[in-house]
Amino acid sequence: MLPPKDSFSEWYHELIQQAEIMDIRYPVKGLYVWLPFGFKIRQLVYSKLREILDRDHQEVYFPTLIPEDMLMKESEHIKGFEDEVYWVTHGGLEPLEVKLALRPTSETAIYPMFKLWIRSHADLPIKIYQIVNVFRYETKHTRPLIRLREVTSFKEAHTAHRTYEEAEEQVKSAIEIYKEFYDFLIIPYLIFKRPEWDKFPGADYTIAFDTLMPDGRTLQIGTVHNLADNFAKTFDIKYETPEGDHAYVHQTCYGISERCIASLIAIHGDDLGLILPFEVAPVQIVIIPILYKGKEEGVLELSRRLYERLKNFRVVLDESDERPGAKYYKWELKGVPIRFEIGPKEYENDEVVVSFRDERRKFRVKFDEVSDDLILKWAKEMRERLRSRAIESVKGKVVFCESLDDVAKSVEGRRLALVHVCEKCERELESYGSVLGQMQEKPDWLNVELEGECVVCRGKGYLVGVAKTY
Amino acid sequence: MLPPKDSFSEWYHELIQQAEIMDIRYPVKGLYVWLPFGFKIRQLVYSKLREILDRDHQEVYFPTLIPEDMLMKESEHIKGFEDEVYWVTHGGLEPLEVKLALRPTSETAIYPMFKLWIRSHADLPIKIYQIVNVFRYETKHTRPLIRLREVTSFKEAHTAHRTYEEAEEQVKSAIEIYKEFYDFLIIPYLIFKRPEWDKFPGADYTIAFDTLMPDGRTLQIGTVHNLADNFAKTFDIKYETPEGDHAYVHQTCYGISERCIASLIAIHGDDLGLILPFEVAPVQIVIIPILYKGKEEGVLELSRRLYERLKNFRVVLDESDERPGAKYYKWELKGVPIRFEIGPKEYENDEVVVSFRDERRKFRVKFDEVSDDLILKWAKEMRERLRSRAIESVKGKVVFCESLDDVAKSVEGRRLALVHVCEKCERELESYGSVLGQMQEKPDWLNVELEGECVVCRGKGYLVGVAKTY
Repeated sequence: MLPPKDSFSEWYHELIQQAEIMDIRYPVKGLYVWLPFGFKIRQLVYSKLREILDRDHQEVYFPTLIPEDMLMKESEHIKGFEDEVYWVTHGGLEPLEVKLALRPTSETAIYPMFKLWIRSHADLPIKIYQIVNVFRYETKHTRPLIRLREVTSFKEAHTAHRTYEEAEEQVKSAIEIYKEFYDFLIIPYLIFKRPEWDKFPGADYTIAFDTLMPDGRTLQIGTVHNLADNFAKTFDIKYETPEGDHAYVHQTCYGISERCIASLIAIHGDDLGLILPFEVAPVQIVIIPILYKGKEEGVLELSRRLYERLKNFRVVLDESDERPGAKYYKWELKGVPIRFEIGPKEYENDEVVVSFRDERRKFRVKFDEVSDDLILKWAKEMRERLRSRAIESVKGKVVFCESLDDVAKSVEGRRLALVHVCEKCERELESYGSVLGQMQEKPDWLNVELEGECVVCRGKGYLVGVAKTY
Repeated sequence: MLPPKDSFSEWYHELIQQAEIMDIRYPVKGLYVWLPFGFKIRQLVYSKLREILDRDHQEVYFPTLIPEDMLMKESEHIKGFEDEVYWVTHGGLEPLEVKLALRPTSETAIYPMFKLWIRSHADLPIKIYQIVNVFRYETKHTRPLIRLREVTSFKEAHTAHRTYEEAEEQVKSAIEIYKEFYDFLIIPYLIFKRPEWDKFPGADYTIAFDTLMPDGRTLQIGTVHNLADNFAKTFDIKYETPEGDHAYVHQTCYGISERCIASLIAIHGDDLGLILPFEVAPVQIVIIPILYKGKEEGVLELSRRLYERLKNFRVVLDESDERPGAKYYKWELKGVPIRFEIGPKEYENDEVVVSFRDERRKFRVKFDEVSDDLILKWAKEMRERLRSRAIESVKGKVVFCESLDDVAKSVEGRRLALVHVCEKCERELESYGSVLGQMQEKPDWLNVELEGECVVCRGKGYLVGVAKTY
């Protein structure tokens, strides 16, 4: 049995295992095994990310190992990572001449190649991405898909442009990409500009996507960095302008890790297990024949006909020996969006019983009415219901605060506090929780003002989030 | 300009770069960057491999890092790898308590989990695979896609069965999988059982696929290992039999690395560059408008109409400013199977000029005749031509030898020597080259006998390959 979702941490921990997403028994802290079912979710989710990026990015693959001198070149950057880099020091029984870092992220592997690739303004922009494993020596509490020592599926995009303004346009375009991706996953998000002290090491500024987990802590599920010409100066990446001058490129990078899957699990699931949006469900439809002695034949025949008819989808006909109840339990746990049940009565009336994972009420339809179009209509309706549910759940954990007391209480009570503050006073909020930074756009489901009176000094302020974070 | 293919090593080295498969300037020996064009080939090739495996395997992902004690558990196995394992010894600035190996292959990461997964005979067989990066501290001469320190795309499958016989059946089934895969890539192969002294460390026996590179050296492009219960005993992987006893499982594993892409490049390419089979070409068709002043409009209009018509394929309409000759050169280098040229004359006559990458003769067809079906017919014919060419090329480098002198001369002259030998005398062949082992089946393009008189002792022998290898 799964713990109730109200005990979020236990629920998440158990669900990951029981739904066969990961095996968490690998004997190194922070390293987990993707099981076949979980791996399929990963594939479906990342296929979508690839599809969106492929419109105007090119996929590449850079080496995992970064020599010490390359990694160390950008001083801000390395300060941000030096405590969590894994170092390869030996090959076979011999010490290496140059230590090799396991990439924590790939700026320092990629940008020396950018220097070789970029000659003239005609080479720009460059937009590439890769989906790779990256490594962090996490000393904090680790958690599958959320805080890992090997992030197995880090999507990192890197771009180079002529000017700061073009880089800024790319930041906007990356934000649109991430919005499309998370809208596809039906994950509500808030977009913040991280405060100066919390930006990506080496960046000019960092925009982050945060969602709210069921326990009221925020989860950062995507970041977009304008690097300006900071790395270009370090790695000497220049181009010849149309006028024949030489100028540094301006860069951006933006990343999404398998936290996208953590949020998918956490936001949509319920006490019975996963609830997967139709588009990313490894099994979209399950058909369960209800067998009574002497009446198996017709029921199986109708079940198989239904299975054949639904072959355009990822459909399973569960003919195993388990009892129907055990089958319901199993496929509910795995988040299958649509379930059909067919028993002797259904066979006699040429009907099927239908149940949706999120609603669980049962109803009947005539066998002949079941078609691809009907399934897609149901999937679309379910998508709308999931969206409303997800927004309700997240919205209930966001509080607009008019005083610092309110902020303190809200964060303490595991809410995301939104409050107006000015740049000068923003850092004061740090004593209440993590400062997520300035909200960049108002989601349509949230009724707040992006500008207002600073809660500290009553000067002109902007809207800032404060929360406990993962 | 590309060196001629006769200078194979230089040709290969240059082609990898000029065709934009990899950037070889990454500043660590044996590590390379997959460029977008190369990455697409990789994706197309590995999609096929996935498609074949997905029929009865499940894809998973295991961690990259293997603790020292786990890696060291199987003594034969570790002896085979200890000189080439990369060791992670530090996290941040601290030494790790337990050293972590970068997986050279994943038996020792996976089998402790098999122990947890397998309880009863009903849990068997298990058939999983993963496509991952693996690491070898190569001290020999490294070469892109062939000898690497990071193999970025190692497909490794791992299975567990009840009995030795079932494992042996799986070996056969894996061989069929690899045959299908290499037939798809139109790569001729020979299948050998590696001699005892060259089997996979820890295996009962090893079956290998070898192809012949243009320089007459063999390239091992796939291996299948029957592990018997060797690893099961080390990792204590037992199951309850139907009779209630406990027995060790029997295992197999089989791997293919990006050498499959090396062989694709090396076998099919020519002096002008890549020749890619239609199915794995990132660009399958290129359309080149030949523009003369004043006659651009009609030519471009017809070219664009052709482009629209061929949208079901990976088609490029090259409207860049380069001259037609430069465009031909570029797309020939990149191995595009079908080229269309459209100039003013073609526009007037409602025709197109066609040229196939492997033949390079030009001919005309009426615009209206160009259809998906015609393209597929051409692709099929080209596939047959590539097959004949590839077989001719490989066959010319295989020599059946009737004396040890012959073997010596053949291997020295960069041929693969086939010779009958008995088990007792097999090792004597080592002084002539690498002994590939006993040929498992006769390819239909090769006229040899699998059995014959031992070249050394004149006893009963089997057919063995001897060659210089990569």
